[in-house]
Amino acid sequence: MYDVFKIRSDFPILSREVNGKPLVYLDNGASAQKPQVVIDAISRAYGQEYANVHRGLHTLSTIATENYEAVRGKVARFLGGVPEEEIIFTTGATEGFNLIAYGWAMQNLTAGDEIVLSVMEHHANIVPWHFLRERMGVKLVWVEPEVDGSFDPARVAEVLTDRTKLVTLTHMSNVLGTVVDIAAVADILRPRSIPLAVDGSQAAVHTPVDLTVLGADFYCITGHKLYGPSASGAVWIKAERMAQMRPFMGGGDMIRTVTRDDITYNDPPHKFEAGTPGIVQTIGLGAALDYMTAAGIENIAAHEADLRDYAQDRFRSLNWLHLQGTAAGKGAIFSFTMDGGAHPHDISTIVDQKGVAVRAGHHCCQPLMQHMGVNATCRASFGMYNTRDEVDTLIDALETCHRLLG
Amino acid sequence: MYDVFKIRSDFPILSREVNGKPLVYLDNGASAQKPQVVIDAISRAYGQEYANVHRGLHTLSTIATENYEAVRGKVARFLGGVPEEEIIFTTGATEGFNLIAYGWAMQNLTAGDEIVLSVMEHHANIVPWHFLRERMGVKLVWVEPEVDGSFDPARVAEVLTDRTKLVTLTHMSNVLGTVVDIAAVADILRPRSIPLAVDGSQAAVHTPVDLTVLGADFYCITGHKLYGPSASGAVWIKAERMAQMRPFMGGGDMIRTVTRDDITYNDPPHKFEAGTPGIVQTIGLGAALDYMTAAGIENIAAHEADLRDYAQDRFRSLNWLHLQGTAAGKGAIFSFTMDGGAHPHDISTIVDQKGVAVRAGHHCCQPLMQHMGVNATCRASFGMYNTRDEVDTLIDALETCHRLLG
Repeated sequence: MYDVFKIRSDFPILSREVNGKPLVYLDNGASAQKPQVVIDAISRAYGQEYANVHRGLHTLSTIATENYEAVRGKVARFLGGVPEEEIIFTTGATEGFNLIAYGWAMQNLTAGDEIVLSVMEHHANIVPWHFLRERMGVKLVWVEPEVDGSFDPARVAEVLTDRTKLVTLTHMSNVLGTVVDIAAVADILRPRSIPLAVDGSQAAVHTPVDLTVLGADFYCITGHKLYGPSASGAVWIKAERMAQMRPFMGGGDMIRTVTRDDITYNDPPHKFEAGTPGIVQTIGLGAALDYMTAAGIENIAAHEADLRDYAQDRFRSLNWLHLQGTAAGKGAIFSFTMDGGAHPHDISTIVDQKGVAVRAGHHCCQPLMQHMGVNATCRASFGMYNTRDEVDTLIDALETCHRLLG
Repeated sequence: MYDVFKIRSDFPILSREVNGKPLVYLDNGASAQKPQVVIDAISRAYGQEYANVHRGLHTLSTIATENYEAVRGKVARFLGGVPEEEIIFTTGATEGFNLIAYGWAMQNLTAGDEIVLSVMEHHANIVPWHFLRERMGVKLVWVEPEVDGSFDPARVAEVLTDRTKLVTLTHMSNVLGTVVDIAAVADILRPRSIPLAVDGSQAAVHTPVDLTVLGADFYCITGHKLYGPSASGAVWIKAERMAQMRPFMGGGDMIRTVTRDDITYNDPPHKFEAGTPGIVQTIGLGAALDYMTAAGIENIAAHEADLRDYAQDRFRSLNWLHLQGTAAGKGAIFSFTMDGGAHPHDISTIVDQKGVAVRAGHHCCQPLMQHMGVNATCRASFGMYNTRDEVDTLIDALETCHRLLG
């Protein structure tokens, strides 16, 4: 039984007020709040069990190393049970995609090669590929969602050529909530042996992810969206792709030997993890994944599906509000604009007066905004601790907005 | 008046025992412990004031952004009062040097160009330059310390050529404690307009640093060694060097506009900070710098100089122990080996039984180990909270070692 009120009581910030009103936090797409167990894990790691990892032989270093390295297995299990040596810790999906771009793509692509991506991608899964365009003459090939925001895997098949060397897609749009059928895309790519990179920043938060059956080659997750610490995260990379990669960042831990004239590298995954890592952030991420697992990712998904359906019904009752993205099975992420040209920034500011935190802007998705013909939207994005009552509070606040700005 | 016992009481981990003995933490060169104010700042940031930064207009995002951005000024003031827009947040010196290598050097150097570095450098300030050697044919030119571990700036002058495009040096050796006279090196380079990068990972922890007079172009610091959170840090880059740089990591925040065909970048420093940053780590770093500033960096330096002198005298009384590095004015960092071939790992393990945490290994400085003709050393590195009594405990533990292994 999923008790959302018990869950809420685990997140200290949800008890606070904003502008004299109880906080209604609906900016989970940007970053999620943290349960006390994560905060406690961080405090304990710094207050009682801290030292640098890997390199020390003393007791505290051994404890810190064990706590830190144990998270590799937690991430591997959270993602369906992949081998834990295929998990590389990062500071989030941005570093994950830069690792794939610098470490794999710059090594394996040449001028004229093509990368296929959707216009729904977050800038984290766009800008690194623009670097390859600018620096190497790689060509970016874009695919679009359907009018309702759904994504048809056949669109990918249509644009493949002999020069296609990578397809990179979000698993769940951070603006539209659209879930991309990654397995279907993988089925299209498999006969051509084209690698598939996936941005799991949203999907891993809201749905069970099993990388043993998904058919991807690279999968990035973001810790701070997974109720974990800022600057935590990981990327899963299939061993055969890791074998095609050169190191990205250089420093301690990722080397085997360094001389004045030569260098040899450590085995993966350490080859791709340079310097003192985010020790305590990663330990905190482990606590967050433990917390989500205890709540049950299936239960979280079911709870959020209920919120999505309830919110969608209520949004649809507002005939002056335009929802972007109504794909079946979408996540509980709602982007919208209002009749009368009310600026999303003004909407956000007004609902904030009611304690409601929503986001306004391009959501790091400028190509999608251009595709939709808007500069910005408002976005309400739900998480495991949100309630139907909070949907109602949001709707009330939007009605106030409409009266003021409409 | 510097009250080390008051300072100690601010660090919760220093009250714990290891192997039934009070912890004597002498592994500060690898990473420092955290005062309660840092842990509290982290807990408060997550528990009461958390949201993503820069992109939100709601109250929590505004609070988090203000708390986060305020640290840029704290870092700028800590480093002597440089312009705060010249401060780029990183996860530590490793990311800092990779940013310099990928962002500045790969853009401005070509095959046959030369980078001068010392054999004392940490791998964080070696491996990124090996990347340029491997990938671009850049030549690495090495300079050596003197027999006592001191560093003569004239050694740099001797190796400069018309192809020298960068000199990169540590400000304080993490193995020998040697302080490099960076200002003297800068004086040598200035007439030739050769840029100077500096690894401040140790120096900024133990001595006042004033970048307005040092004459460097790039200066990296590491937050977790500065009593701050893991994966925090910054690099200072002179504005004119920033103007010569291309972006390193791509993602949100560092762009101005993204279309399918083109991209334009944000202004520095944001141009070099991609994606959701280490929000809470950086806030924690700010708390750590506030703490150090309140204690007084001059006072910390004086306290550690006393510890250095006391420890050096006691070490010298052990005629079976060999200190590496006895340069005048060195930091309180002592590397040593023992007569009879006792392995540093065994020494570390034995003193750990007495509660004493020291490090054994190559300290991410393999070229220096090769230069010294050893595979590994033991290292005791002191911080602001260590005491003369702890020196005595270390010496007692080493005497036990000598009886067991000597």
